[in-house]
Amino acid sequence: MASLKSLYEPSTDLGNALNTNFDVDFVIDYRFATTSKTAAEAQFVKLIEALNNVGLATEVRNGDNCAVLIFIKVASERHLKAEVYRSRVQDWLYGVRTVAPKKEIQQNLKDEPITEAERLRLVYLLITKPKNEGGAGITPKSGEWTCVESIFALHDHQFNKAWIKQLTSKYFLNSEDLAEIKDRFGEKIAFYFAFLQSYFLFLTFPAGFGFCSWVLLGKFSPIYAIINGLWCVIFVEYWKKQETDLAVQWGVRGVSKIQLKRPQFKHESTATDPITGEEMKVYSPFKRLARQLLQVPFALTAALVLGSLIAVCFGIEVFISEVYPGPFKAYLVFLPTVILTVMMPALLSVLTGFATRLTNLENYETTDSHEAAMVSKIFILNFITSYLPIFLTAFVYIPFGQIIVPHLDIFSLTVRPFAENEKQLTAPKAGFQINPNRLKGQVIYFTVTAQIVNFLLEIIVPYVSRRFFRKVKEVKTNRAMKKSGTASPTADDHPEEAAFLTRVRNEAELSVYDVTTDFREMIVQFGYLSLFSVVWPLTAVSFLVNNFIELRGDALKIAIETQRPVPWRADSIGPWLESLGFLSWMGSLTTAALVYLFRGDGLGPDGTPWNINTWGLLLTMFFSEHIYLGVQLGVRKALSKIDSPGLQKERAERWSVRKQYLQESMGQEAADNAASGGIAGGEKISRNTLEEAARLSTLKGHGTPEERFWQRQQGQAETIAVGKNYIAKAAPKDKSESKKEL
Amino acid sequence: MASLKSLYEPSTDLGNALNTNFDVDFVIDYRFATTSKTAAEAQFVKLIEALNNVGLATEVRNGDNCAVLIFIKVASERHLKAEVYRSRVQDWLYGVRTVAPKKEIQQNLKDEPITEAERLRLVYLLITKPKNEGGAGITPKSGEWTCVESIFALHDHQFNKAWIKQLTSKYFLNSEDLAEIKDRFGEKIAFYFAFLQSYFLFLTFPAGFGFCSWVLLGKFSPIYAIINGLWCVIFVEYWKKQETDLAVQWGVRGVSKIQLKRPQFKHESTATDPITGEEMKVYSPFKRLARQLLQVPFALTAALVLGSLIAVCFGIEVFISEVYPGPFKAYLVFLPTVILTVMMPALLSVLTGFATRLTNLENYETTDSHEAAMVSKIFILNFITSYLPIFLTAFVYIPFGQIIVPHLDIFSLTVRPFAENEKQLTAPKAGFQINPNRLKGQVIYFTVTAQIVNFLLEIIVPYVSRRFFRKVKEVKTNRAMKKSGTASPTADDHPEEAAFLTRVRNEAELSVYDVTTDFREMIVQFGYLSLFSVVWPLTAVSFLVNNFIELRGDALKIAIETQRPVPWRADSIGPWLESLGFLSWMGSLTTAALVYLFRGDGLGPDGTPWNINTWGLLLTMFFSEHIYLGVQLGVRKALSKIDSPGLQKERAERWSVRKQYLQESMGQEAADNAASGGIAGGEKISRNTLEEAARLSTLKGHGTPEERFWQRQQGQAETIAVGKNYIAKAAPKDKSESKKEL
Repeated sequence: MASLKSLYEPSTDLGNALNTNFDVDFVIDYRFATTSKTAAEAQFVKLIEALNNVGLATEVRNGDNCAVLIFIKVASERHLKAEVYRSRVQDWLYGVRTVAPKKEIQQNLKDEPITEAERLRLVYLLITKPKNEGGAGITPKSGEWTCVESIFALHDHQFNKAWIKQLTSKYFLNSEDLAEIKDRFGEKIAFYFAFLQSYFLFLTFPAGFGFCSWVLLGKFSPIYAIINGLWCVIFVEYWKKQETDLAVQWGVRGVSKIQLKRPQFKHESTATDPITGEEMKVYSPFKRLARQLLQVPFALTAALVLGSLIAVCFGIEVFISEVYPGPFKAYLVFLPTVILTVMMPALLSVLTGFATRLTNLENYETTDSHEAAMVSKIFILNFITSYLPIFLTAFVYIPFGQIIVPHLDIFSLTVRPFAENEKQLTAPKAGFQINPNRLKGQVIYFTVTAQIVNFLLEIIVPYVSRRFFRKVKEVKTNRAMKKSGTASPTADDHPEEAAFLTRVRNEAELSVYDVTTDFREMIVQFGYLSLFSVVWPLTAVSFLVNNFIELRGDALKIAIETQRPVPWRADSIGPWLESLGFLSWMGSLTTAALVYLFRGDGLGPDGTPWNINTWGLLLTMFFSEHIYLGVQLGVRKALSKIDSPGLQKERAERWSVRKQYLQESMGQEAADNAASGGIAGGEKISRNTLEEAARLSTLKGHGTPEERFWQRQQGQAETIAVGKNYIAKAAPKDKSESKKEL
Repeated sequence: MASLKSLYEPSTDLGNALNTNFDVDFVIDYRFATTSKTAAEAQFVKLIEALNNVGLATEVRNGDNCAVLIFIKVASERHLKAEVYRSRVQDWLYGVRTVAPKKEIQQNLKDEPITEAERLRLVYLLITKPKNEGGAGITPKSGEWTCVESIFALHDHQFNKAWIKQLTSKYFLNSEDLAEIKDRFGEKIAFYFAFLQSYFLFLTFPAGFGFCSWVLLGKFSPIYAIINGLWCVIFVEYWKKQETDLAVQWGVRGVSKIQLKRPQFKHESTATDPITGEEMKVYSPFKRLARQLLQVPFALTAALVLGSLIAVCFGIEVFISEVYPGPFKAYLVFLPTVILTVMMPALLSVLTGFATRLTNLENYETTDSHEAAMVSKIFILNFITSYLPIFLTAFVYIPFGQIIVPHLDIFSLTVRPFAENEKQLTAPKAGFQINPNRLKGQVIYFTVTAQIVNFLLEIIVPYVSRRFFRKVKEVKTNRAMKKSGTASPTADDHPEEAAFLTRVRNEAELSVYDVTTDFREMIVQFGYLSLFSVVWPLTAVSFLVNNFIELRGDALKIAIETQRPVPWRADSIGPWLESLGFLSWMGSLTTAALVYLFRGDGLGPDGTPWNINTWGLLLTMFFSEHIYLGVQLGVRKALSKIDSPGLQKERAERWSVRKQYLQESMGQEAADNAASGGIAGGEKISRNTLEEAARLSTLKGHGTPEERFWQRQQGQAETIAVGKNYIAKAAPKDKSESKKEL
């Protein structure tokens, strides 16, 4: 663990700084480098007042480079407890909790202690909620709070260290580990780890089967395709169930109903909520729908722009590597990569900008729906950049290569500067052979190389660069201080706090953790498995190894690479579930198509794939898809039959709440009767009650025809006697009797 | 209304018998024609005792032909009220009701009076529920109750008459009408009428559009196909929403969770319910799943058997009408119809028998799941018999007719007896022209002729035959009495009751109303619209007319053709919803295929359809289906945005229940605060609280490092002062200041 330790303690001179947070809940990084002194002071005063007004205590310390750090905690324990209780009552009002919180605050908090995630979330809400909802209304970098660079919680380094150590020393996370993550980093991040964990566990099957299939069946095996499709269905359906179950266990089922309002939301009119009587801000859903329709041209444009870039680069690459015979070929093959590397990020950032503006235009009321809308747009972009190259190879290059490649000499323009004579620029009209290994190579690139590169970019590069820049900064600051003679920002630090403040200044510079990015990575990865793994059955093995590291890497990233995330709640993995289902479905189409096109050894005798029978291909895809949908229905039904501990717990809670109410209101026995659905044996009709009835009717005279009807036979005995008489008259005679008569 | 009146009062000599039911809730028709006298008497005694034991009062009267009629009502009003209250409490325990029933029974019943449906349902349950659940355990015709022919409620003829009159005098049912049906005949039947009503209203659009399309666009119009598909999606999605809404309005949402146990259910073991603590009977779901898989061979067999019958008859018909030139042709064309009419019902009844046995084998615990399983099997049979003929014409006869028909001379066997010479039996090898109008003719047959025939068979024929057989019976009985001198069963009737008893004897002979059959009819009808209406756009017009009559006809059937149905509850149209969705989906495939195959004038110049481009056809279907699924998703999302009165009511109820609890437990103001989600402005940090804190820390010595950290700046003013100082040192200078310095 030596390496971990060294990773973990970036500078040894922090001493015991890692052991205490001085009870600080949140820190505001207040930066005024671009603001005038008076404005900065005025905003600072307003900020401190706003914070104090909602019951938060503040301390201020010097920050790095034109910044002060404002430390925040809840002023009194009683205030915090009241907040927690209110939040729990609200959960119950919205149906998130089944059991109403105990009426005594103290008792409630004793039964269910405040978790760190709960405390941090409520304090964060207190800081950021609009004033009319009882918060301080601080919105970083926007509105009147231009100087508020960020609001972040401080890492609990003692916990983090133990947590990372624990994660790296075991293979699987159990439910206690997940509960711990939930209590520290909130349900949203816990859901990510739970998903990653389930996915990792599930991957063991296709990894094992994929390996066998690789050894025994080869690529494009229909058996592998079927098993892989089935696995996708089961995994997606299982996760749906698991997700609900976790939400119930963590007490957050339906928490997405309690939505955070977006401060940016612009309402058209106000109305009174017919249910709660609160005032609601309204924006016409039809207007929003109309704006949402803009997603269609957006998706088309993105597909066109990114698609043509990829297609052009692909074309150039094919031309250079397989057609072009001229000089510098060894270097020119990198030309498309260079074009992609330069152009793609630029295009993507333009498109992401468009997506952001489009999502803002759609004007969502809540952060959740805003995020979901953004995610769906980003998913489209990711889909194109991640899968289009393989689609091009599989469904354009290989089947139509013989036709298209000879026309690629239009790309000779790109290499003209390097050509020695005109001859080198014309493609050979015949004799071109498509490269049958290109598809497999590409899949391996995306499922192995890209994953490793990704990991490096995500974890290692930021770490190294951060260390490097911190050193540079230190040197610079020292030199600047020597030169100008101004005091270092640390000059005022009390010795007792110095190490702690250095740590906080470092944490202030860290980036913000965004769980969406990590989710996206995993979903895109799942896509390779469901869409293309039939090309190279070892895909899942690579992912299994990658995800083992990924889980620990993400934990490490949260612990040391980013600021401590605000522990938001969530009751599912949100919009990613839909993407997951969509990719799994798409898989049934692409896998069928790949198997149909490349089955056998993949290529016919002349280097082209089988004579393509278009209707055969379409029919295969059609059946594959419908079998997929049928199986999905079946799996869903079968899984719904299995009871899950979470749902059972919820039902049991509901039941006991109601049972208790009954017992309070009508006594133990009656409640038991009503609850068990049994109807207690009705009162017997005794002679007494009948005589009573007769007496009543006599008192009233002879009664109504109805009364007379029901009094013709007084009591059970008479009914039986009369009935027997009727039966005796009409019934077929018993054999013995008939004999007697004879 | 003269005709209605005459329909309504089958015999005028019943006098005021239609005006009163003598407070009778249920009648048991006890028949002992095949039982020996002693056995009949013993069972009768046991029956009466069992009924009396659960608090039911009984009267016995003579029935027709070896039968007695046992009249049943709840012995005391108090007992009934207790039953109703228990049932309501149980509803609440299972979450069907949001608001707990008032604690005082009287108050509860006053707030929400007992409806007739509720009373009849509870009395019926009291009669039929197993003894251990507090019922009398009477199961007609099975177990120990072989003589119990039927248990039926008596019609409220006064209401029925008014109801029929009302229905026939208005075009649309409003929600009061539906609520009335619900209160009289139970939610299950009310759902049928609500569905029929919504369907009827929705049909006006395709009827109007279909008419325009018929005039302007002709058949196989892609525009009609698209609009029709869209309509199907919207209708199905709308009904899903409407269904939930009605269930909430009627207070039965989730009532399917309170399941009636099937007495035939065989359990493997018993277990204790972890939630309610009751004993549960358990049957392994995996065993059941294994048995459910038998549905696959069942469906295949049914498709094969019915399919070959239909295909053979179809072949014979084509052969005779279009190939065969021999004698008796005019009569022989009816041969296939005769074969179908004879064989189809026989085969269907065998297959239905299989389906019943299969469903029994699957051993469901509750009547609902049993019924749903049976419905799904019957739906398969119906699907084959209703749609296969049209499928054969559209996708086999017309495209492949030229190839297949010349081979049809194998059917010459069937007409050999009629042939005069061998020549007539050989099909002409060439020159055969497929009949392009066959498809349209068939669709018109199924959507118009078959609907009318169906209506006649359903309403008119039973009515006429019943009147006829009743007359026959009367004559017979009279003759028998004259001959044998035995007394007529009516001889004992009290004059005051005679007319009433005659009426009850008549009602005892009526058949049982089965809402499933009516549902099936409507769903199959919807199928024609979604699958084939592009062939003949007037389909919806025919259905519109038909359903107007159908709704009234069904009401009439319930009122006079069948026994009064037991008013069961339901929270949806159950398994039919799935069938509806399935047919709508199928429609996207068949419609696309039909339009692709027959667009233009349907047939190419040589009498065959267009040169079929198989991959074009498949691609069209593929796109059509996926666009359908996409649109469905969109419609579903859009509809989910629209609030419905029922769901709003439910949410408001939930909210008010919880709000009230809060008010009771924590006082008005605090409840308002907690409910509105606003966090009341936290306590201000006054100098007092801080001085208090300082005092405390002094008492404790200098406190912990944490305490010292938070005490460096005492109060807001100090924080602001220190902060301002930091800012002044580090901030960029104001312009004015910089100028001054210059």
